[in-house]
Amino acid sequence: MIPINPFFKKRKKILFYDILKNLNIKYKKIYKNSVINNIQTLDQAKNKDITFFHSLKYKELLNSTKSNYIITTPMLSKHVPDTKTKLIVSNVLISVAKITTFFYPSSLNDEFDINIITPNKKKFKNVKFGSNVLLGKNVKIGKNSFIGHNTIIESNVIIGINCNIGSNVIIKKSIIGNNVFILDGSVVGKKGFGFFPNKKQNIRYPHIGMVLIGNNVEIGCNNTIDRGSLSNTVIGNNCFLDNQVHIAHNVKIGDNCTIAGQVGIAGSSCLGNNVMIGGQAGISGHLKIGNNVKIAGGSGVIKNISDNSKVMGYPAKDIKIFIKENI
Amino acid sequence: MIPINPFFKKRKKILFYDILKNLNIKYKKIYKNSVINNIQTLDQAKNKDITFFHSLKYKELLNSTKSNYIITTPMLSKHVPDTKTKLIVSNVLISVAKITTFFYPSSLNDEFDINIITPNKKKFKNVKFGSNVLLGKNVKIGKNSFIGHNTIIESNVIIGINCNIGSNVIIKKSIIGNNVFILDGSVVGKKGFGFFPNKKQNIRYPHIGMVLIGNNVEIGCNNTIDRGSLSNTVIGNNCFLDNQVHIAHNVKIGDNCTIAGQVGIAGSSCLGNNVMIGGQAGISGHLKIGNNVKIAGGSGVIKNISDNSKVMGYPAKDIKIFIKENI
Amino acid sequence: MIPINPFFKKRKKILFYDILKNLNIKYKKIYKNSVINNIQTLDQAKNKDITFFHSLKYKELLNSTKSNYIITTPMLSKHVPDTKTKLIVSNVLISVAKITTFFYPSSLNDEFDINIITPNKKKFKNVKFGSNVLLGKNVKIGKNSFIGHNTIIESNVIIGINCNIGSNVIIKKSIIGNNVFILDGSVVGKKGFGFFPNKKQNIRYPHIGMVLIGNNVEIGCNNTIDRGSLSNTVIGNNCFLDNQVHIAHNVKIGDNCTIAGQVGIAGSSCLGNNVMIGGQAGISGHLKIGNNVKIAGGSGVIKNISDNSKVMGYPAKDIKIFIKENI
Repeated sequence: MIPINPFFKKRKKILFYDILKNLNIKYKKIYKNSVINNIQTLDQAKNKDITFFHSLKYKELLNSTKSNYIITTPMLSKHVPDTKTKLIVSNVLISVAKITTFFYPSSLNDEFDINIITPNKKKFKNVKFGSNVLLGKNVKIGKNSFIGHNTIIESNVIIGINCNIGSNVIIKKSIIGNNVFILDGSVVGKKGFGFFPNKKQNIRYPHIGMVLIGNNVEIGCNNTIDRGSLSNTVIGNNCFLDNQVHIAHNVKIGDNCTIAGQVGIAGSSCLGNNVMIGGQAGISGHLKIGNNVKIAGGSGVIKNISDNSKVMGYPAKDIKIFIKENI
Repeated sequence: MIPINPFFKKRKKILFYDILKNLNIKYKKIYKNSVINNIQTLDQAKNKDITFFHSLKYKELLNSTKSNYIITTPMLSKHVPDTKTKLIVSNVLISVAKITTFFYPSSLNDEFDINIITPNKKKFKNVKFGSNVLLGKNVKIGKNSFIGHNTIIESNVIIGINCNIGSNVIIKKSIIGNNVFILDGSVVGKKGFGFFPNKKQNIRYPHIGMVLIGNNVEIGCNNTIDRGSLSNTVIGNNCFLDNQVHIAHNVKIGDNCTIAGQVGIAGSSCLGNNVMIGGQAGISGHLKIGNNVKIAGGSGVIKNISDNSKVMGYPAKDIKIFIKENI
Repeated sequence: MIPINPFFKKRKKILFYDILKNLNIKYKKIYKNSVINNIQTLDQAKNKDITFFHSLKYKELLNSTKSNYIITTPMLSKHVPDTKTKLIVSNVLISVAKITTFFYPSSLNDEFDINIITPNKKKFKNVKFGSNVLLGKNVKIGKNSFIGHNTIIESNVIIGINCNIGSNVIIKKSIIGNNVFILDGSVVGKKGFGFFPNKKQNIRYPHIGMVLIGNNVEIGCNNTIDRGSLSNTVIGNNCFLDNQVHIAHNVKIGDNCTIAGQVGIAGSSCLGNNVMIGGQAGISGHLKIGNNVKIAGGSGVIKNISDNSKVMGYPAKDIKIFIKENI
């Protein structure tokens, strides 16, 4: 169950007609003039949400989506069943950014939290605060937790019980389980590195996703874990991340994963359970790494990896083949 | 146009005789006993500045330099036109460090800024400050900018309008354009990793360059962008850098470049415009990367790359060849 | 000489009988019911300390250890001389963690230092403090040192003379020599990434080692240097580390080493003197890198390297062979 996102204010509903106008699509009779509740990914969307289809990679999700309103391109539109209402645009992701900003008007800004206050320590049961801790509004911290010196926890963040947050940590737009360690200097929940390249001035898109961290997790020092754009960035239970790890937006990591120092995982990649990744390995974006996969240190993964594989090298291949060829 | 460097106090002029003495060079009649204004790189030096020639890589710049005073080695001196005054030394760079320190007596120290004060918020028009912000003397911040919590901006730094500086950021010796984002935990303007190896105690050399950041730039979280030694470190307009990127001293990056997470660019390399670099790629020092170059994630670039190339691998080669050989 | 560890409170001695009970080993007549003073690695242990043998890599150290009490496995026990008292367990390292926690009851916790206070500046001779510096109890700082803004130095840390600690730095469980620079945003002395993988909840083990830094060392920005588990993490004299370097627990680095940006060294590897490592190179754990070794940037080292070697590639091999094959 995905918890409700407390971080971004959404407009309750928008007339479909206004969405068409926003996208410069001519109103046709064929479009029902209904009301739209939200914009969501194919798998998360309900029937009154709008969604988008921008790559054949997601064909399976397209076939099972509950949404009736699909933003897509002229080329891809033939894959969308005719029972759906198609919004044909030249650039799907720019259109998604527009509609997201339309639903979440303040989501494009990403300034520091100006509602930060020195914590009223009495409000928190058995929580030990270091010096100069800054908390936003409505922050929840479970009992027996530690919040280190100079650490900043922005508004609406939820932290479970028995957590140990280090010093100089910044947490925003995140919901964190129990028994979680987040060590010194890490930044959790900053917007992802997502934008549309554009001469003179790139166009940023809104990041309305959260970071969701399970129970018994450890995040090392100076990590950066970006929040999702439309979906969330997820770190499963009992995952341990070493220092200087970078987790990009929309990444999903299963349970019991171990990620060594300086690993980078690019946007929207999904890892199964029990994945072990050696130091400095990199995983490209939009990949699917199966369960029980082992990735040797320094490897560069550029395609999907099936369950129970062991890989090494750049590009990463079966470790036995790599060793035979190289060692 | 390179802006005037407000960060280091320079002695107005030094007698050429004193420079020779400082370098242990015997005064000869052939040397004109004039006055020297500054020490500069071959391309930046004016006729009364001293400069240096320490590698054949820079032969072209040598031929067009305006400087009349060239520090070089016995081996390289034959390439220096006889119309120039040659200062022959055994180690060019150590001599350059000596003369730089001579012109900029306080440039070897690199302590934290002791002139830091809590900002007088009234002095800044429409700038929003977080808690515990520390500003040095003469800091300029354009209107409609945000400066996050615990952020330190040292003396004489200039920040343009509509900038968004995150929390826990440190900025020193830098001039920053308009609409620039610098996200949480980044360190901009620290001295470069430049020194002369020496048993018992390495010899640091002064870094009197700045960091110059153009307009519409985004610098991600926990980046480190070092200032230049003699020249500046430059990041062009509309460049976007992801998290944990490391930009070494004297690097020049053109306009519209996109640099993904954990990329490292070693000292003095130059990138053209519209360069795209995938995550964890590395670029060795003193290289020239052309315009419109694409470097795949995880690549290691160890030689110059010409315009419009796409490269991949370690060492990076043409991406088509790499894929044919490896995938 | 290794300095005495002032950071962890040790129980003075423990009955051997109680250690056996803790490990679920049945008491046999053959075991002398003596008293044990400490738990130590093979090379550091004295005759009344308990030690452990968990890999044939350490056979040489086993043969010269002074300890009479050796924790080992059924498989490895045949290598332990019969003159020693053997403690046969199924998992050596979990047993070591148990006994370490037994000797050092508070060593498993790793919260921020709650004894932090604003420094009484008069106590420190000629030390310049930035704003918001936080110091623990019994911190020692030598004269003519600088401690930057927002920096946290936890209890019992010792810093030598003429040191230059930047801003936003965190130092704990460390003893630091003279003329040492530690630049902005680095975290020194955090516990290592050491734990026993375990479904539902990994088991952390105590880290009672320190970080020992020699004289004339420079640590760049945003570095992470973890303290040792049982032994110490050591950085020798006159080592220079660039930005974003990661040094894992128990790593030992000799004198005069130069380590460029974004290098990672995994746990328990040892480097000799005069080692030079290019940017983004990685060294696997438990390796031995000889003296005067040069490792090219971007290399991945996965086996021991002998003195005076130059290596490149992934896996790193002789640089001449690498260049012949690849360039």
